[in-house]
Amino acid sequence: MSLDVFVAESFGTFMLLLLGTGVVANVALARTKGNNGGFLMVNFGWGLAVFAGVYVAALSGAHLNFAVTVGLWVNPDAAEFAPGVSKDFVNAMGYLAAQMLGSILGAVFCWLAYKQHFDDEPEPANKLGVFSTGPAIRSYGWNVVTEIIGTFVLVFVILSFGGTSTGLGPLAVALLVVGIGASLGGPTGYAINPNRDLGPRIAHALLPIKGKGSSDWGYAWVPVVGPIIGGALAGFLVQFVTFPPPAVAG
Amino acid sequence: MSLDVFVAESFGTFMLLLLGTGVVANVALARTKGNNGGFLMVNFGWGLAVFAGVYVAALSGAHLNFAVTVGLWVNPDAAEFAPGVSKDFVNAMGYLAAQMLGSILGAVFCWLAYKQHFDDEPEPANKLGVFSTGPAIRSYGWNVVTEIIGTFVLVFVILSFGGTSTGLGPLAVALLVVGIGASLGGPTGYAINPNRDLGPRIAHALLPIKGKGSSDWGYAWVPVVGPIIGGALAGFLVQFVTFPPPAVAG
Amino acid sequence: MSLDVFVAESFGTFMLLLLGTGVVANVALARTKGNNGGFLMVNFGWGLAVFAGVYVAALSGAHLNFAVTVGLWVNPDAAEFAPGVSKDFVNAMGYLAAQMLGSILGAVFCWLAYKQHFDDEPEPANKLGVFSTGPAIRSYGWNVVTEIIGTFVLVFVILSFGGTSTGLGPLAVALLVVGIGASLGGPTGYAINPNRDLGPRIAHALLPIKGKGSSDWGYAWVPVVGPIIGGALAGFLVQFVTFPPPAVAG
Amino acid sequence: MSLDVFVAESFGTFMLLLLGTGVVANVALARTKGNNGGFLMVNFGWGLAVFAGVYVAALSGAHLNFAVTVGLWVNPDAAEFAPGVSKDFVNAMGYLAAQMLGSILGAVFCWLAYKQHFDDEPEPANKLGVFSTGPAIRSYGWNVVTEIIGTFVLVFVILSFGGTSTGLGPLAVALLVVGIGASLGGPTGYAINPNRDLGPRIAHALLPIKGKGSSDWGYAWVPVVGPIIGGALAGFLVQFVTFPPPAVAG
Repeated sequence: MSLDVFVAESFGTFMLLLLGTGVVANVALARTKGNNGGFLMVNFGWGLAVFAGVYVAALSGAHLNFAVTVGLWVNPDAAEFAPGVSKDFVNAMGYLAAQMLGSILGAVFCWLAYKQHFDDEPEPANKLGVFSTGPAIRSYGWNVVTEIIGTFVLVFVILSFGGTSTGLGPLAVALLVVGIGASLGGPTGYAINPNRDLGPRIAHALLPIKGKGSSDWGYAWVPVVGPIIGGALAGFLVQFVTFPPPAVAG
Repeated sequence: MSLDVFVAESFGTFMLLLLGTGVVANVALARTKGNNGGFLMVNFGWGLAVFAGVYVAALSGAHLNFAVTVGLWVNPDAAEFAPGVSKDFVNAMGYLAAQMLGSILGAVFCWLAYKQHFDDEPEPANKLGVFSTGPAIRSYGWNVVTEIIGTFVLVFVILSFGGTSTGLGPLAVALLVVGIGASLGGPTGYAINPNRDLGPRIAHALLPIKGKGSSDWGYAWVPVVGPIIGGALAGFLVQFVTFPPPAVAG
Repeated sequence: MSLDVFVAESFGTFMLLLLGTGVVANVALARTKGNNGGFLMVNFGWGLAVFAGVYVAALSGAHLNFAVTVGLWVNPDAAEFAPGVSKDFVNAMGYLAAQMLGSILGAVFCWLAYKQHFDDEPEPANKLGVFSTGPAIRSYGWNVVTEIIGTFVLVFVILSFGGTSTGLGPLAVALLVVGIGASLGGPTGYAINPNRDLGPRIAHALLPIKGKGSSDWGYAWVPVVGPIIGGALAGFLVQFVTFPPPAVAG
Repeated sequence: MSLDVFVAESFGTFMLLLLGTGVVANVALARTKGNNGGFLMVNFGWGLAVFAGVYVAALSGAHLNFAVTVGLWVNPDAAEFAPGVSKDFVNAMGYLAAQMLGSILGAVFCWLAYKQHFDDEPEPANKLGVFSTGPAIRSYGWNVVTEIIGTFVLVFVILSFGGTSTGLGPLAVALLVVGIGASLGGPTGYAINPNRDLGPRIAHALLPIKGKGSSDWGYAWVPVVGPIIGGALAGFLVQFVTFPPPAVAG
């Protein structure tokens, strides 16, 4: 993987996390203008965060999500991770590293943008909720099931984009993420992306956030393992449904 | 109909129902993150469920709805159900079977994704509401009228897409469904698709849902008969308004 | 104007009014599923009503609005009302007649779709509000100003579409209407279309709606005169800003 | 810069400000139909205001925002401000003047459209809030940081559009603005555009608004300086991430 590809993937994931964690901060933290803006606003916020990230990461194929990288890796119809980036272990780790770096930095800049609202927010759980997902009803088994299903839909549909020609580009994946959030985000807050949850959780642990509580490491494996399983299943099964070779961007 | 077409139609309908019933679960069931998210969120959830399903079912022309199959069947300008799939009784039954299979399985996986919230929800009517539609004011005659009108709009506009070239692809039908839901979903919850209601109702009857109540079979014919009449009327009448041959996808 | 063009314009306006008045019924009438769904839902409902109507009326250039017809008429860069439909008085009256017919019928079918909710609604003003607009603060002069400004934006931007090539098609005007509703709909409920208000008001006067009150004919001239002035101003002024010849559809 | 370009940029910014300040008026002023419509409605209103403005200002490249002008100026890959408009000081001042003129006039016409609601609104802060942004928690340093981050995202992603071919046109930047508003608008109300704040603030100071209070000139430098810094940073840094030459419109 060239440095260009690494930087693009990293900056795209940075945009995704900055805007994605930002909409949660806007809805959840004290005294913001979007306080209690509703779940549909959160869904649009995350969907349009993907939209921005995909444009920025055009050079790397805009995975922005290790579950997408895994899905492409497993999928026999996808020849490469991106134009000129072969599917091998080193490149997969390169995507993972770029995504982790970008997601940590994105969360840091969200904290800077909302600095005073983090300081003003009395509830530690609301602060963690900006960074990382948590289940509405804790039950690791069922929480993993929900994350598998959500990520399966994400990667399966992305890998089906190639069968339909449109002029939507990054909007297709953005709207898909709006839809998955609205439909399958109820139980776990839809990580559907290992980096989206783990990167900001590391940022939460490291940053000097005023009055922060636990980073809830006990749950941290769920939004990593679930999405990886879901992405791998989708990457394997999609070959039996859509026969034209899949493309990453819609 | 080849197995490929059957599988594509079935998987597309699976995506439609998984995401569509999912958004209702998110809004209606206890303790979800999208609880009371509003009717517009339900409209976007169902519209984007169609969006995902259309990509997945590209091979079969993405009917996903027996009312669309009927509308194409009746319409003299539509030469085939999909490229290479002739309009005959056997193929129509193949679409119906694929759609029913996909819609039952979609509802099952929605139940798995929201398993704990189904367990936690005290009200049986809210559980059934995730699977199947029910009227705001029960009156079979007027309820059928509402479903006829809503499905007429859906199929009529889909069959008009061919007259306007755009790059919207699956987004056109997705937005149409958002609009029909917001505008005509008030009285009956807009089945506008026989499979969308009957498949999940069968799932509701069969699944071991904790504390479930009646599957309300007395109403089940309304969202089957209304959409079939509306789709047939639209398929017949559209030839007198839009003169270029209609295409299924926008 | 051929019968084909008349029928297309009429059916498109029918779709616009059926869906447009439908979303107001869903938000305003008793016991609907979208009750109190919010102003943004109304904005999306009307925008997507335009979306559906534009596809259906492709043959007539999809004016759907006499203010658009007037804007094109006044605009020296627009050579025709639609391909093959010359700009003359007879054709303008043909558009007006087709739009009025479609808008009356659209409101009638909205009443049928929501029949029981009209019967159940105790407040006559809510029933009229489904059909026709009314001002938040009555003052004919200022209400006309608001309608002029809103329609000016609508027609001016539509006539600017030709300068930018996109693949959005009917979505461009749909989103424009969502935006005008959200931004300029606060004082008068944004008729921005003479037919949209007058046609349903006639339907309200004629239909045997249970417990209906006055059709408020005293206000009826405002959403007719305001939009015609706004459309004419836009059609005249746009030539000084956008130099490529305008096209109707985006 | 030709007069054509000046007029186009000015009219486009007029549309942006008329619709953008309009949605705030609708949500914030007394007795409007969209009162308390929610932050997502404000986000869509501003996004679609950009959408309308970009179509109108096609001839000038539709900067509509001096931070975009600065970003293009700094960016070595952007050869011109718009086709035929060279990057020099005089042209930059031409953009600034056109944007300021349009933004003042847009705010004036918003006041006319909502005249009676301004008269009826008892709270001076709500009146100023229609014209100009203000921080949720006042702290000039952190407020500037938030504006820098938001504008950085805006200009960086706009300058990345050129790397991905789509048919979205003005919709790409419109959706980006919806997303930035939802995600980063919480602390300062996202000016992310010097003209968007300063022009209407001048209008607020000059107009005979009934019962108006202070124009809060103490804060006025924040939404000017922050966006200019953010736009300049983005224009400089984007060259290291996206290698194809950037284009203004998506």
